[in-house]
Amino acid sequence: MSKLLLTGFEPFLENRHNPTEQIVLELDEEVVGEFEVISRVLPVDYERAAEMLIEYVDQCEPAAIMMLGLAADRTKVTPERIAINVNDSVEDNSGNAPVDQPIVKGGPAAYFSTLPIKKMTDALVENGIPAEVSNTAGTYLCNNVMYSVLYALEQKEMDIPAGFIHVPPTFEMTLHHSAHTGFPYTSIRDSIKLMIYALSDD
Amino acid sequence: MSKLLLTGFEPFLENRHNPTEQIVLELDEEVVGEFEVISRVLPVDYERAAEMLIEYVDQCEPAAIMMLGLAADRTKVTPERIAINVNDSVEDNSGNAPVDQPIVKGGPAAYFSTLPIKKMTDALVENGIPAEVSNTAGTYLCNNVMYSVLYALEQKEMDIPAGFIHVPPTFEMTLHHSAHTGFPYTSIRDSIKLMIYALSDD
Amino acid sequence: MSKLLLTGFEPFLENRHNPTEQIVLELDEEVVGEFEVISRVLPVDYERAAEMLIEYVDQCEPAAIMMLGLAADRTKVTPERIAINVNDSVEDNSGNAPVDQPIVKGGPAAYFSTLPIKKMTDALVENGIPAEVSNTAGTYLCNNVMYSVLYALEQKEMDIPAGFIHVPPTFEMTLHHSAHTGFPYTSIRDSIKLMIYALSDD
Amino acid sequence: MSKLLLTGFEPFLENRHNPTEQIVLELDEEVVGEFEVISRVLPVDYERAAEMLIEYVDQCEPAAIMMLGLAADRTKVTPERIAINVNDSVEDNSGNAPVDQPIVKGGPAAYFSTLPIKKMTDALVENGIPAEVSNTAGTYLCNNVMYSVLYALEQKEMDIPAGFIHVPPTFEMTLHHSAHTGFPYTSIRDSIKLMIYALSDD
Repeated sequence: MSKLLLTGFEPFLENRHNPTEQIVLELDEEVVGEFEVISRVLPVDYERAAEMLIEYVDQCEPAAIMMLGLAADRTKVTPERIAINVNDSVEDNSGNAPVDQPIVKGGPAAYFSTLPIKKMTDALVENGIPAEVSNTAGTYLCNNVMYSVLYALEQKEMDIPAGFIHVPPTFEMTLHHSAHTGFPYTSIRDSIKLMIYALSDD
Repeated sequence: MSKLLLTGFEPFLENRHNPTEQIVLELDEEVVGEFEVISRVLPVDYERAAEMLIEYVDQCEPAAIMMLGLAADRTKVTPERIAINVNDSVEDNSGNAPVDQPIVKGGPAAYFSTLPIKKMTDALVENGIPAEVSNTAGTYLCNNVMYSVLYALEQKEMDIPAGFIHVPPTFEMTLHHSAHTGFPYTSIRDSIKLMIYALSDD
Repeated sequence: MSKLLLTGFEPFLENRHNPTEQIVLELDEEVVGEFEVISRVLPVDYERAAEMLIEYVDQCEPAAIMMLGLAADRTKVTPERIAINVNDSVEDNSGNAPVDQPIVKGGPAAYFSTLPIKKMTDALVENGIPAEVSNTAGTYLCNNVMYSVLYALEQKEMDIPAGFIHVPPTFEMTLHHSAHTGFPYTSIRDSIKLMIYALSDD
Repeated sequence: MSKLLLTGFEPFLENRHNPTEQIVLELDEEVVGEFEVISRVLPVDYERAAEMLIEYVDQCEPAAIMMLGLAADRTKVTPERIAINVNDSVEDNSGNAPVDQPIVKGGPAAYFSTLPIKKMTDALVENGIPAEVSNTAGTYLCNNVMYSVLYALEQKEMDIPAGFIHVPPTFEMTLHHSAHTGFPYTSIRDSIKLMIYALSDD
């Protein structure tokens, strides 16, 4: 059976919880559509996250890669269209706060996702989950791992679908936070499974 | 067994669907906590809604009244603190668009909810559903029926808990609407049951 | 010449600056329309603000009262329709954090503003400043002083227009705050003058 | 004196007015810093906008290019970091609604702005105007002309600073629109001048 490498992140910044960590642990080794899910949780660390992720790719030889991250201010599930060649952010969990640094010196300005992002978004909307394609993955760790993996796959000449999806916060995370709105955890988790099914049918 | 009169509204304005209609129909005749739920759907019509609601009070002699309405731009479940003596709004479903008109000529400026709104809000948050007390029910039909019922109960010297709760839109209602965010229908319905349990324990 | 008592508040909570303080100091003793403006800055203190404000009313015998306050999360200038008989908030600057306490024991549930709020709002919109009537002044100091003054005027049988206006934050206050949006200080100040002119013509 | 080519757009979609049109007409032939401003208004038409813009570049041989566009849902002035090789949008003013089409077949995935976007943003914030770098220019005409110009400059081996800036709507545009917030027109116009000065000092 084909393997799908599914990654989430540990908590970061003021978020004491990261639903993508919980989701990937819950789906680990589960069969969804035509895929066996292999899950990994990444550190929020510019120096280690992409490197570890690329090692996991070498280890598990996946047929597809779906990377997840939390976007605390989004109100929909948002498959990312593109990753750009820049790190420019507040601190990661190790204190790195790069300013306008290329992820890969001399690398292309950007890589488009190779996941079927429109099909995945449509599958969510058809199943009643608010979703839309996003045109920016930001310039923090999420964009960093998406760019790094797409660059590495090009270098390795591995032609597999890979991309990143941002999810909104959970209800739990927004209970005491007036500015943000979230989804029930189960809706977020179900959205990931629906997108794996959509990829499976592709 | 004590009866709880639970009301929702039919669809209005640009909303083709009103989750409060579906919820009250689903909970009709159900036993929740110490209450048997008696449900009614109200028309979005200044001339008929409050009058019908007060007739239902006379008919079913409830021990408590919980009125529900949709607030398409809210992102939490919001028990209302107060209803004010004014109609001032866009059109209802019959074309009435009152401007600064008292609901009851010579009536008090406002009535506070007699539901345990803090206890109900706490019960939701403890169960992971974003909720907070609201300090305005607006000046449309929702405020109109809340004021009218509290005024009528005072006139009838009926000392029973009564009040209004606004709910956010459903996921379904926000799928193609970028400005609003909603809850899964089941989360909204469950929130109503949790608030009836909280009232039941009061 | 008739006097208009114009009040603002000192800074509070996380706001290091309060534009209403600056505006009232700037307009003090200025003539606007048919009014001479008499300004006072109120402390954010439940035990002193309303008491001081009512003393100022006795001292300056105004023909009208316009109270200003900052609403950091609003995006329009919002004359308030109503004040309600409850204090229920986070801490004031002296550490008082009342929960569901009446402002006046046995007082009416609410008082409507006696300012021409629709006329004032229309004047702003006609002059290109985003404005709308608000149906809640909250349950913090702003609502407290509005309720207290309207109650006191009723007790004193003083039949003068009085009410409260919330203003959005200034550009300066939102430069480093992603969740809020503001107005240039001059637009906020000009909006106050436009509303005094509107009251003057009433 | 060096010329700066400054472009805006005509109105589009539900916007009956486009402040970028008014701004560029107002600044046309004005001297700002070391630049003489040469202004052009572009049609909201996929088949003509970029082509016309590149013709203007050939005609006026500018030392810098600053393209402006309206982002009706933004609340800050946002210099764009990057343009991506895709058209994917609702209709332009001629009825074209491309879906996932490359702007330049076989072109690079993206081009970074060559304007000093951080310096420009800092200049605005220092002058009290809310501003931040944006990581997406969308996938409509704004992104289209930014990508097209940066691609054309590369083809022509013209090494001049060029990029795109999105501005929020004007107060006028948001007076009757509850979901959006804007700036006074003069604040938007001043922000453009401040960014030209910042470029001038670069």
